[in-house]
Amino acid sequence: MDRLIEAIENAQNPSVVGLDPTPALVPPQVVASFADEVSDSVEDPAEIPAAQLAVAYFEFNRTIIDAVADIVPAVKPQIAMYEALGPAGVDVYTMTCEYAAQQGLYVLGDIKRGDIGSTAAAYAGHLSGVASGDTSFDPWHEDAVTVNPYLGTDGITPFVDAATAADKDIFVLVRTSNPSSKELQELDLADGGKLYEHVADLVESWGSATIGEHGYSRVGAVVGATHPEEGAALRKRMPHTFFLVPGYGAQGGTAAGVAGMFDADGSGAIVNSSRGIIGAWKKSGEYRDSMTADEALSLVASAARSAAQDMRDDLRINVYR
Amino acid sequence: MDRLIEAIENAQNPSVVGLDPTPALVPPQVVASFADEVSDSVEDPAEIPAAQLAVAYFEFNRTIIDAVADIVPAVKPQIAMYEALGPAGVDVYTMTCEYAAQQGLYVLGDIKRGDIGSTAAAYAGHLSGVASGDTSFDPWHEDAVTVNPYLGTDGITPFVDAATAADKDIFVLVRTSNPSSKELQELDLADGGKLYEHVADLVESWGSATIGEHGYSRVGAVVGATHPEEGAALRKRMPHTFFLVPGYGAQGGTAAGVAGMFDADGSGAIVNSSRGIIGAWKKSGEYRDSMTADEALSLVASAARSAAQDMRDDLRINVYR
Repeated sequence: MDRLIEAIENAQNPSVVGLDPTPALVPPQVVASFADEVSDSVEDPAEIPAAQLAVAYFEFNRTIIDAVADIVPAVKPQIAMYEALGPAGVDVYTMTCEYAAQQGLYVLGDIKRGDIGSTAAAYAGHLSGVASGDTSFDPWHEDAVTVNPYLGTDGITPFVDAATAADKDIFVLVRTSNPSSKELQELDLADGGKLYEHVADLVESWGSATIGEHGYSRVGAVVGATHPEEGAALRKRMPHTFFLVPGYGAQGGTAAGVAGMFDADGSGAIVNSSRGIIGAWKKSGEYRDSMTADEALSLVASAARSAAQDMRDDLRINVYR
Repeated sequence: MDRLIEAIENAQNPSVVGLDPTPALVPPQVVASFADEVSDSVEDPAEIPAAQLAVAYFEFNRTIIDAVADIVPAVKPQIAMYEALGPAGVDVYTMTCEYAAQQGLYVLGDIKRGDIGSTAAAYAGHLSGVASGDTSFDPWHEDAVTVNPYLGTDGITPFVDAATAADKDIFVLVRTSNPSSKELQELDLADGGKLYEHVADLVESWGSATIGEHGYSRVGAVVGATHPEEGAALRKRMPHTFFLVPGYGAQGGTAAGVAGMFDADGSGAIVNSSRGIIGAWKKSGEYRDSMTADEALSLVASAARSAAQDMRDDLRINVYR
């Protein structure tokens, strides 16, 4: 986790921008601007809308990345948004990761994978790349990925091994930000405590052999900003586990609410905002249907930059020391 | 679930072939046979090994599919094996799904996705395809997908909605076949019962509005063959939930062990085998390093067909009526 912690220190900003494009978050003239390019290159007419969105997603992401790269330490592309477009979307996911990495950002792939041991080892290729002879090939360009704990230790170990070998990290779901997360995660256990606390203890143990210079292991935890008290208790319970905190902004989490998820030194967590940054252009009041694609992208950039600065300042005031 | 159940009835065979290729499961001369084709079409030398494996995976899968299409009702490609090769692998995953569907097979995409509601809706594009204007585009070609329950109801509902709209199905992880599945799934709850039983009840309820002509809902459950007693108890506990049963063969599950996961009519479950079928050529004793690629693929086909017939007969004798 050292690389992420140092990137946060350099930026003096414990926030990560979620790159979760949807058709509604990309200005329509940007999508339309790729109509000719896509219809020339895609043979099957049925594939054109998805291909056009995919190209537009990359242009949109590149615009956001360029606008925030000197403000934030990291980005978190959510692969679901790209899978929704099929393989063309997956290509753009990897292009987005690669471009962000080239701009010096830590790339946290929100892929929430999880499977039994032998299959988890294949998923861990997201971190290790393709091992084949003497060439090294890293098709995903992720510095970390999110992982689901429901399968237990043998579904996690391959990711820890791959992360260790490649100087990368993972973040395991512990307490997610969504309302129905309580249905499983808050269940009371017969031996005391709740399920998410049991998972928290597993996560702390899964990372125990990989603690870095800054005191945190390679196995982080996902703890939603929508659970301030639980998050603060987990901070104490998991002293060597770095937190990825989703749910700030659009989902209702606040800087004051996430303050308890940071450690006494102001480290220990990174807070994600997706729609609040990449959709800021829609709330700016400056968008006009008559804008050109370039004008719309300029607004996307300036609104995202401003929102990222606001979030950084909010966290600096309330959380980060 | 009606389409799957009818496919099983037509084949008189409640088994599904897992299409989980690995570098070790594809005969090396098959991989080598694509060297020229790939080096001509791939620009970056670092990408060549993965691209060559990806092409070989498709040829291997097509060989297996052709060999078993008249014996089994379904195939289950495991997307992790393809993601391990990067986007080129994901392309081959979708090509494999499309080819299998064209051969009349029910395609069960083992993707184990799961996220919060808005993101789950994007993942549900695996089933719904890309909604865009008046063109319909289904890039994934899956008839069902596997889903992780850790996020609760709002992570499941989008999949159920998409499955219902598209006449497709999902299978939710309940009791997985791996050894450390017990770490979470067998936890005793304060209100009685174990975590996987609580998940089982959720799964039964998630499907309750989608029960088909054959009495099973669109929301199935993954129940490992390595847990015979628990599986039999779950069969009674979840009367409208169809089971996907992994872990037969290589992981130690037997036909006698899975018998209790079927209902009184011999329906209610489909049993997966992956390595036991697609890796049968390695155990045949007939493989020779001197074989050509075509000869090796012929052996792959005949060994897979024979293994699939053996599994079918094993299930017919012990389970299926």
